[in-house]
Amino acid sequence: MTARFTRRFLIAAALLSALCRPGLAQTDPLPSWNDGAVKKSITDFVARVTTQGGADFVPPEQRIATFDNDGTLWCEQPMYFQLAFALDRAKAMAAKNPALQSKQPFKGLLAGDKKAVADTGKKGIEQVLTVTHSGMTTQEFTRSVLDWIGSAKHPRFQRPYTELVYQPMLELLGYLRANGFKTFIVSGGGIEFMRPWAETVYGIPPEQVVGSSGVVKFQMGADGKPVLVKEPKVEFVDDGPGKPVGINRFIGRRPIFAFGNSDGDQQMLQWTAAGDGARLMGIVHHTDAEREYAYDRQSKIGKLDKALDEGTAKGWTVVDMKRDWKKVFAFQ
Amino acid sequence: MTARFTRRFLIAAALLSALCRPGLAQTDPLPSWNDGAVKKSITDFVARVTTQGGADFVPPEQRIATFDNDGTLWCEQPMYFQLAFALDRAKAMAAKNPALQSKQPFKGLLAGDKKAVADTGKKGIEQVLTVTHSGMTTQEFTRSVLDWIGSAKHPRFQRPYTELVYQPMLELLGYLRANGFKTFIVSGGGIEFMRPWAETVYGIPPEQVVGSSGVVKFQMGADGKPVLVKEPKVEFVDDGPGKPVGINRFIGRRPIFAFGNSDGDQQMLQWTAAGDGARLMGIVHHTDAEREYAYDRQSKIGKLDKALDEGTAKGWTVVDMKRDWKKVFAFQ
Repeated sequence: MTARFTRRFLIAAALLSALCRPGLAQTDPLPSWNDGAVKKSITDFVARVTTQGGADFVPPEQRIATFDNDGTLWCEQPMYFQLAFALDRAKAMAAKNPALQSKQPFKGLLAGDKKAVADTGKKGIEQVLTVTHSGMTTQEFTRSVLDWIGSAKHPRFQRPYTELVYQPMLELLGYLRANGFKTFIVSGGGIEFMRPWAETVYGIPPEQVVGSSGVVKFQMGADGKPVLVKEPKVEFVDDGPGKPVGINRFIGRRPIFAFGNSDGDQQMLQWTAAGDGARLMGIVHHTDAEREYAYDRQSKIGKLDKALDEGTAKGWTVVDMKRDWKKVFAFQ
Repeated sequence: MTARFTRRFLIAAALLSALCRPGLAQTDPLPSWNDGAVKKSITDFVARVTTQGGADFVPPEQRIATFDNDGTLWCEQPMYFQLAFALDRAKAMAAKNPALQSKQPFKGLLAGDKKAVADTGKKGIEQVLTVTHSGMTTQEFTRSVLDWIGSAKHPRFQRPYTELVYQPMLELLGYLRANGFKTFIVSGGGIEFMRPWAETVYGIPPEQVVGSSGVVKFQMGADGKPVLVKEPKVEFVDDGPGKPVGINRFIGRRPIFAFGNSDGDQQMLQWTAAGDGARLMGIVHHTDAEREYAYDRQSKIGKLDKALDEGTAKGWTVVDMKRDWKKVFAFQ
């Protein structure tokens, strides 16, 4: 061999060895999932739709996978994390704003008077959401989300909220992407609340996050720099029958794989199921009070009733958290 | 060498030769663009933002490029192609529907009576859009778009409308993608009108198409299969100040590269310009009556007036179609 030939050969061999790294295919891509029917339904499905020439093969550009967020990718108890953000933020805003301090529910928030806050009911929550989610630019809102998510802690686990993502679901997202899927969040939560951290935490870029939104308005600033201002008006509720609508609007393609955990995901799962060819509909059933929470039909948050019946009747992939997950959170 | 070794070597060499195909880097990525300041502004920009370690380097996930469609990626004269679709389709629908036949503008469309149609004015156009764009499922609408786009011909060029895309812009889309950009359409046109063919024609998947939309409603069919029904109600107008709003809503990240051709793109270009770091704002100026059309400040369609002034004053990349494009359409 000439020197040039040898060099080419060595580079080629290195490339080859990287491509053929032994055992890569054998490594379990879902190590936090216990072996069983649920895990097998997922790996079987992925094998079927990715086998070129197979009856169920799906071209990569059509491998759309959608995931609910609250209760599916991360914890949603004892309250939606976005509501915790809004309450914390409203308290901080009230501390600096005398006009807010004088009225409920802000006065109660500042004083730690839970009863006074609760007494304001639905109207009080709306006021908290309005104050914390509008009247600022999109950039200012993003900053407030990042400030909170970088410092707040979950009341039970005493960990940052971003550590309360489900390790098995992180593995599932990565496994799907490694198999050519494009992963999306389709959540009832606020789109602008999720986007600032979804890429770091889930590997899902902002343009693949679908969620509820408020009206936003373009304004030219006095300095000649335009801003987008968040207005106190709901634009779109990406929940229940809104989820297929959101999928149609943002993605424009029907998923072949969808995961949820509550009745708010039922229509997304139905919409996914109604397409042609192989598809997988999954439900996370919260059955593990010890490691996380146990709730379903009677829960105020993440109620799972009709979708559980439909999923069971139709043979969807119903994850029993206690039985199917080796661990729930990475820190456990 | 053993036989196995030889085989590995041959595979490796083939791999290497594919990777190192000579001249790949030297080939002009924009062959339909004439050399000059405009072409150079584009290639210089791309070089700057992709040079690792350079002052203007932008990580791939932030390389968002947005393109208006009508008049920027394909022709928009003598009328927006979506309007041509609506008129053709309304005529076909009227031919099968006695209730429509008896009233204007449908009667006039059937009879080829242009004056009668024109006399119905804005209200007539609204009726045509309502009839052709609502009262059906999203799937039915998609089929009607694909039927039309596969058969209709442009009145001047006598070619399918999908051949009236600008060859230089196709090259630009491919060039950006080859350099790690994610390319989006951000158009005043209907999102569901563009998605069915945008992937084939532009290489832009449905989830990267942003546009105007009508309200869509989830309904459970009698057969237990859900459908999405298009309602006769405007949901979002992705034009003018709506473009930065649409970008924020769908993409959630500010573009570093944006191209338009009319005053309806001005706010998108301003929004792009107002971000930090290197960015390129481009305008297609239609100056070529011979190969395409020549129009700007006085045009009813694609009026380019204020954006041309701002682009010129601020040194944006203003394409002079006649001067800067070697060819306009691939068939020329």
